[in-house]
Amino acid sequence: MAKKGEFTVTPWEVSGNVDYDLLIKDFGSQRIDEPLRQRIKKLAGGELHYMLRRDLFFSHRDLPWVLDEYEKGNKFSLYTGRGPSEHTHIGHLVPWFFTKWLQDKFNVPLLFQFTDDEKYLFKDKLTRKDTLEFSKENMLDVLAVGFDPKKTRMIVDTKEIATLYPHALDVAKKVTFSTAKAVFGFTNDTNIGSIFFTSIQSVPAFLPTIEKGKPVPVLIPCAIDQDPHFRVTRDVAPRLGYPKPAMLHCRFVPALLGPQSKMSASDPVNTIFTTDAPEEAAKKVMRAFTGGRATVAEQREKGGNPDICSVCQYLNFLFEPDDKKLKERFEDYRNGKILDGENKAYLAEKVKAFLKEHQRKREQARPLVEKLFEEK
Amino acid sequence: MAKKGEFTVTPWEVSGNVDYDLLIKDFGSQRIDEPLRQRIKKLAGGELHYMLRRDLFFSHRDLPWVLDEYEKGNKFSLYTGRGPSEHTHIGHLVPWFFTKWLQDKFNVPLLFQFTDDEKYLFKDKLTRKDTLEFSKENMLDVLAVGFDPKKTRMIVDTKEIATLYPHALDVAKKVTFSTAKAVFGFTNDTNIGSIFFTSIQSVPAFLPTIEKGKPVPVLIPCAIDQDPHFRVTRDVAPRLGYPKPAMLHCRFVPALLGPQSKMSASDPVNTIFTTDAPEEAAKKVMRAFTGGRATVAEQREKGGNPDICSVCQYLNFLFEPDDKKLKERFEDYRNGKILDGENKAYLAEKVKAFLKEHQRKREQARPLVEKLFEEK
Repeated sequence: MAKKGEFTVTPWEVSGNVDYDLLIKDFGSQRIDEPLRQRIKKLAGGELHYMLRRDLFFSHRDLPWVLDEYEKGNKFSLYTGRGPSEHTHIGHLVPWFFTKWLQDKFNVPLLFQFTDDEKYLFKDKLTRKDTLEFSKENMLDVLAVGFDPKKTRMIVDTKEIATLYPHALDVAKKVTFSTAKAVFGFTNDTNIGSIFFTSIQSVPAFLPTIEKGKPVPVLIPCAIDQDPHFRVTRDVAPRLGYPKPAMLHCRFVPALLGPQSKMSASDPVNTIFTTDAPEEAAKKVMRAFTGGRATVAEQREKGGNPDICSVCQYLNFLFEPDDKKLKERFEDYRNGKILDGENKAYLAEKVKAFLKEHQRKREQARPLVEKLFEEK
Repeated sequence: MAKKGEFTVTPWEVSGNVDYDLLIKDFGSQRIDEPLRQRIKKLAGGELHYMLRRDLFFSHRDLPWVLDEYEKGNKFSLYTGRGPSEHTHIGHLVPWFFTKWLQDKFNVPLLFQFTDDEKYLFKDKLTRKDTLEFSKENMLDVLAVGFDPKKTRMIVDTKEIATLYPHALDVAKKVTFSTAKAVFGFTNDTNIGSIFFTSIQSVPAFLPTIEKGKPVPVLIPCAIDQDPHFRVTRDVAPRLGYPKPAMLHCRFVPALLGPQSKMSASDPVNTIFTTDAPEEAAKKVMRAFTGGRATVAEQREKGGNPDICSVCQYLNFLFEPDDKKLKERFEDYRNGKILDGENKAYLAEKVKAFLKEHQRKREQARPLVEKLFEEK
């Protein structure tokens, strides 16, 4: 739990103006520095994902060890997930796009967990049916992102609980309420399911080792708010005879309202969902908070600030993978050459085109998802 | 949790000289009185089990409601269980014998739960394999007691977790750490699995209603130390739209060492296991704590005290269902006519004969148990 006066970062709340340097210090993770980036680039076949080039994935735990093992021929497994409390919004896609890149470049398997139990336990208003239904909806997005179905295993907690529960007991037996309280900020009013839940989120980090019967490195790319869960996982791992999972942390995608929070499903008007009608999403973009000035004349004269501009940041995180183009646009925005209206229209077109294609792939994935849900 | 200076009664610890009147007051349950006994007798076809006649089952919650429903044609389901931390000892058989009587007399189904997860979480030294193995061993005893396999459903928690977990989440969402702390005496050092566990023990109380899709009364016969779990269950039930399970509580069978504690697997020398060689069990009886005097002469003169005599109490709880014979023996013991050696030898013969027959039935049940464990 990080509650630093100015900002809060827990798996269930991100608010305020996040100071990522302070967060790294507080969480005790490592910066991804240039030598490490170059090492990843080399092993990935000479290419570096724009999220690494742009420091959007900015922090890690034990990544060099994962790469050492990879060089020795001991391939890692990827593990990431989704808390199915709502439809997917485009902020969620950031770690997924990156995870797909890792899967493709390193040719490794992925465990993708849908924590329907967690979201039911933590969200008063959601029913079990709701979170199961959102698992299904979110899974359509995961498949639309293009993960190789042959190398990707989907785990919906309540559907695979027979596999997860025995190992979750192993974790739970080693974690006291004191620890859970310190890591997650639980109180006496927290329900006993929420207290237990982190045990379930630990298991996919151990499954590759359990199922192969030998130590398999696991790499978890995720937004940094999920780190507390995996601190528990990493603490428990050696006591259960498993390797500690490594981590790759990304920053939060700012909301359309500006840099003070991450995009959130609890604010649907200012959040772009993958299920939004493309025209509706475009309208949301046109209402976005920007880094512009009060008047056109002022912006022409003094320029805008791309660092606090949601529109610029959406291009940075998701919609302009070309560094050169992004740099030019940011410069033009900073010196008043590009105005907000034009910038928004530019992003809106990209968002519309993306959603149209994504929604097509989403529907293509539906028969497979229906099949996965029927089988279990 | 009842910690009353003189004695402690929790699902995980029973010690001291239990004051059952104080316990009823503290737990807030009801005494089984003569009119209620007569009502049970009538509905059971004119017979009353000796454990009711002797006030060994002495306390209840909502039993009249269960009988009302039964009279209206709405049959109840029975639910009891076993924490598989060790081999079964003969003390465990008390509620099982009684439950079988209820099943036979009222012709009702039984859910029998084996909480292998609980025992793993609460007992440091036990592995998951241990508690699963003891579930199997204990199940042999359950079947040897003679429950009708057609009307009895065995639930081993880790094997049926796919059925239990979703409903356990419903319970867990409604129970705060405060409540769990107050009911069970948990501390900050309690592991997060133990904190969650009571949710799993609640589920079989709701399964008949869930599976039938209409309210089914559930009656839970058990030793009174299990009551705290079901207080949580009963508290949560109406908030989930289920009827509160009714309870029937029995006293603890004293250990061979005397009335200060219940028989416990942690003291194997003074506990008779159903797997003990009959001759070995007979030797344990011969070493038992009695209500006798320092010398034979003194006992002949002043007599013994059957109330604190383990040997007499074993006859009372398990091995002398004939009230007249028991009364005569107790009188003869009290007036010095029967001495300890003779009394022990009398019980030892009964125990030997029982174990021989029980162990035969146990082995007869093995193929069915192996099958049940393979299937799931």
